[in-house]
Amino acid sequence: MTSPLTNLINTYHELNASEVDELEEEPSALEFLQFVAKNRPFVVRHAANSWTASEKWVADYLRQKMGSDKVKVAITPLGNADAVVQHSHGSLVFVEPHEIFEPFTDFLDDTQASSSRHVKYAQTQNDNLRNEYANLLPDVPTDIPFARLALGQSADAINLWLGDDRSVTSLHKDNYENIYVQIRGQKDFVLMPPVEMPCVNEQLLQTGRYVSADDGELIVRLDEEAERIPVATWDPDEPEQRTTPYSHLAKPLRVTLREGDLLYLPSMWYHKVSQRIGDEGFVCAVNYWYDMDFAGNHWAQTTFIRDVYQAEQMKPVYPKLETGDEKVTATNVV
Amino acid sequence: MTSPLTNLINTYHELNASEVDELEEEPSALEFLQFVAKNRPFVVRHAANSWTASEKWVADYLRQKMGSDKVKVAITPLGNADAVVQHSHGSLVFVEPHEIFEPFTDFLDDTQASSSRHVKYAQTQNDNLRNEYANLLPDVPTDIPFARLALGQSADAINLWLGDDRSVTSLHKDNYENIYVQIRGQKDFVLMPPVEMPCVNEQLLQTGRYVSADDGELIVRLDEEAERIPVATWDPDEPEQRTTPYSHLAKPLRVTLREGDLLYLPSMWYHKVSQRIGDEGFVCAVNYWYDMDFAGNHWAQTTFIRDVYQAEQMKPVYPKLETGDEKVTATNVV
Repeated sequence: MTSPLTNLINTYHELNASEVDELEEEPSALEFLQFVAKNRPFVVRHAANSWTASEKWVADYLRQKMGSDKVKVAITPLGNADAVVQHSHGSLVFVEPHEIFEPFTDFLDDTQASSSRHVKYAQTQNDNLRNEYANLLPDVPTDIPFARLALGQSADAINLWLGDDRSVTSLHKDNYENIYVQIRGQKDFVLMPPVEMPCVNEQLLQTGRYVSADDGELIVRLDEEAERIPVATWDPDEPEQRTTPYSHLAKPLRVTLREGDLLYLPSMWYHKVSQRIGDEGFVCAVNYWYDMDFAGNHWAQTTFIRDVYQAEQMKPVYPKLETGDEKVTATNVV
Repeated sequence: MTSPLTNLINTYHELNASEVDELEEEPSALEFLQFVAKNRPFVVRHAANSWTASEKWVADYLRQKMGSDKVKVAITPLGNADAVVQHSHGSLVFVEPHEIFEPFTDFLDDTQASSSRHVKYAQTQNDNLRNEYANLLPDVPTDIPFARLALGQSADAINLWLGDDRSVTSLHKDNYENIYVQIRGQKDFVLMPPVEMPCVNEQLLQTGRYVSADDGELIVRLDEEAERIPVATWDPDEPEQRTTPYSHLAKPLRVTLREGDLLYLPSMWYHKVSQRIGDEGFVCAVNYWYDMDFAGNHWAQTTFIRDVYQAEQMKPVYPKLETGDEKVTATNVV
């Protein structure tokens, strides 16, 4: 008998395309809700072409609007903020970036130069466009009308993302319905549906944070006190590494957002994001987070998948009984 | 550790009400789709009060419209069409009704009298309002506008249900989004969400059909050739009988439809239906079936629950190791 988790992932793929739908134009609220109901992503090319941000957000304009206002910047050695890092003692650690406040103009200089010793990324994800970057807020819609109507709520957070092409956001998921809009440069998304949880090799990892040593080097300081947190450790771009028995069943969806493109990234979908700078020498995007609905089946069933996977991990697995000459070897034990 | 299935059912209940939402008025397409997305039922009282059927469907009118047109009638000894029956050889059998064609007026006479030796029920569920009962179709909407718009399709079937209060539809589920409208009498629905599959004690049963013996008695004839089919055998009205280890976790929702009330019965929900006659001496309802969407997570995840439940059933369960005097008895083996 096929294992239930294998059957789940295969059934999902039989019933769903392995590519992201492209819509001709912005959906109506009703059309949007049909995608939310199915928990399926889509992209609308050029949806934000008429936004003021799409026209005006060149480096000079941003410098003029933000000036020397201090902004929070994430700093990492390799562009790996909120990422899995192999610690010197050998085990995997989930590392958060070093964070500093610095004048916006200094940050943008470094970002455009792409030459700073460490990688900088403005990615606070705390509704920063209505706070730190409020000077830029008038250049984007205060809400996405089709989403507000469909979900019956306003955006919970509007975030600005600004960095260079060295930053990569590693595979993770959010409990939000997400409307992601590219303003400058490109982003390459790798997307995986919630049913592929058994593929991503979620592990309970110790957490840490990059801190600046005396010589300016960034080193990982472990949070000795903190509880371990569950982190996806499989990388769809290195599919043979850190696998689970289910990783080979995954069919990650890939989509590239170019300037003006809009992506609906459904709640609980795993996503990995890398990026490429545009003519202005930086990458910039805006996203709108809407609270997901925990009622109905969605949350309960997604949690169930994880529970079943974890219960299976805890089960002792015995080698198959061999009746002939063949010996039971370590490789028989999956 | 709580078993994943227990956790699933409990989590669902923590996040969802154990009663059916009542809407003040018919939902918009968008509001309806929000319920479909959550796979949650609702009722709208008096929604069909302005339908011609609500005004005109008294016995005389039906006789006049249908006359002696032959209609298909299900006949059972106890009102148990498509029901689980304990066969004389002891095992459970899923029994379909004896079916006859008879003039509508004869059928209605018997139904009103509620005195026929056997129980009759017009319940063919094969789009009968657009076929057998087409004379009555002009008295109901050809579609439910909010459902058609939300689901992007017309009704796949429109069914008339006509019987007396002896008929009970036993617990089952359909792969349709269902809009159910009460015209005469009342129906008592017991509803259970798809995550409660482990509670309903689904068993693979042999099928059979009532046939009329020489003396007019209805007896069960087994379909010896047919494949066994999965049938829910737990009855929410006899919750201590035929239980599974999960049945006690179920929280069946109960709602009574009175004349003019409309129920949205979401796809894959288990439902048991009993009924009470109105002033005209019969019970009559109309339902609209819309194809459910098999894409997204819904079908795959619902199938997964069954797979996990069945895999658990097949696992050998060993008695707990006892270290003291207490002996391992049969009751230790669940």
